[in-house]
Amino acid sequence: MSRGLGDVYKRQEDILGKNNEYAAANRRWFSEHGVLALNLVSSPGSGKTTLLARTIDDLKAEIKLSVIEGDQQTANDAERIRATGVKALQINTGKGCHLDGHMVGHALENLQPEDQSVLFIENVGNLVCPAAFDLGEAHKVAILSVTEGEDKPVKYPAIFARAEVAVVTKSDLLPYVPFDLESVKEQIVSLNPQGSIVVVSSLKGDGVDQWLDLLRERLTAKRRQQG
Amino acid sequence: MSRGLGDVYKRQEDILGKNNEYAAANRRWFSEHGVLALNLVSSPGSGKTTLLARTIDDLKAEIKLSVIEGDQQTANDAERIRATGVKALQINTGKGCHLDGHMVGHALENLQPEDQSVLFIENVGNLVCPAAFDLGEAHKVAILSVTEGEDKPVKYPAIFARAEVAVVTKSDLLPYVPFDLESVKEQIVSLNPQGSIVVVSSLKGDGVDQWLDLLRERLTAKRRQQG
Repeated sequence: MSRGLGDVYKRQEDILGKNNEYAAANRRWFSEHGVLALNLVSSPGSGKTTLLARTIDDLKAEIKLSVIEGDQQTANDAERIRATGVKALQINTGKGCHLDGHMVGHALENLQPEDQSVLFIENVGNLVCPAAFDLGEAHKVAILSVTEGEDKPVKYPAIFARAEVAVVTKSDLLPYVPFDLESVKEQIVSLNPQGSIVVVSSLKGDGVDQWLDLLRERLTAKRRQQG
Repeated sequence: MSRGLGDVYKRQEDILGKNNEYAAANRRWFSEHGVLALNLVSSPGSGKTTLLARTIDDLKAEIKLSVIEGDQQTANDAERIRATGVKALQINTGKGCHLDGHMVGHALENLQPEDQSVLFIENVGNLVCPAAFDLGEAHKVAILSVTEGEDKPVKYPAIFARAEVAVVTKSDLLPYVPFDLESVKEQIVSLNPQGSIVVVSSLKGDGVDQWLDLLRERLTAKRRQQG
């Protein structure tokens, strides 16, 4: 292991300690307001925003929703979400490769999600760094498209081990790409035996009902906890 | 900007300074040995390893080649490359989200690329962190697949601004996905007006000749510089 990397790990521990304090404050806020917060993590281009736009269209009449969008640059994603009629706030991280607890805390002050709502936090497109940074969310959701190749969970184990929900997207492209869905499911189960896996096509709609049911279940469970 | 992020930037400067020293040492070594080193950067699953395997099959009779593979975990990629008959060394970065100059220096000692050869360095799948870390390479190559969506260069500008070559992969999937190739080319040109863009299907072979010609040109230019 190089000396340079040793330094990175030591400094990362300090940064993670601070982050965890901010995340704990966010978690208390979510609990007090009955907000189910989901932290969506994937590579760039796995279809997070498209899944979100579809989810919002299908759920917004039934459940109050809001969105925090993380990107290095541009407000494209927040604009796409606002076009669905749901409130959304964009965070630009500049050089930063992930959202952190502090950024999300500030975003909450500005966005003010409604009580008993679902908040989707779309992290910066990156399978590595976001895995280490708790934002105070109830669940991490790892998203992987079928065009990315079937070796991704075992190559990026940290996020798949920590994500209670894994969503395999772009299933409509399965006929055109080499992708062994059963192998991917096995990898995900071995990394996180308690997790849920759903396979969807946000474009065609396959599997979307299963994803929506899962969100409804988690929100109901959260409300029951607060009793 | 959060206090946490300010710390990250300060510490990142220290780390980058050290990295640049290692990268400069690698660059001297490449120059002395006439090795053309290319640093391949993309999201996970953009098709870096498939492009490499295809490139090796087509070039190995003509040019001496070797490969350094970066991944958080697994030696799958180095094994895939070795199956083509070319020597390859795997670096596992563990929690690290990119290769650094020090890791590549150690890999060179072990791999010992031949004089007048091309060395491909396949970075960890990540569009953010590898952009900041010079490995001593002659050129960065940014790779983007058509399934990732047409907004990626403008959302991840650092790597596309620094990459002398951009490769758009999986062009055989263009009929099945929403992807405006001309818009993507415009974004890349605006970020790096001097750069080259090639569009390939590693599976079907379209555009691969153009990519191989570009590699031949860069190697010839390097040899001419050394005179």
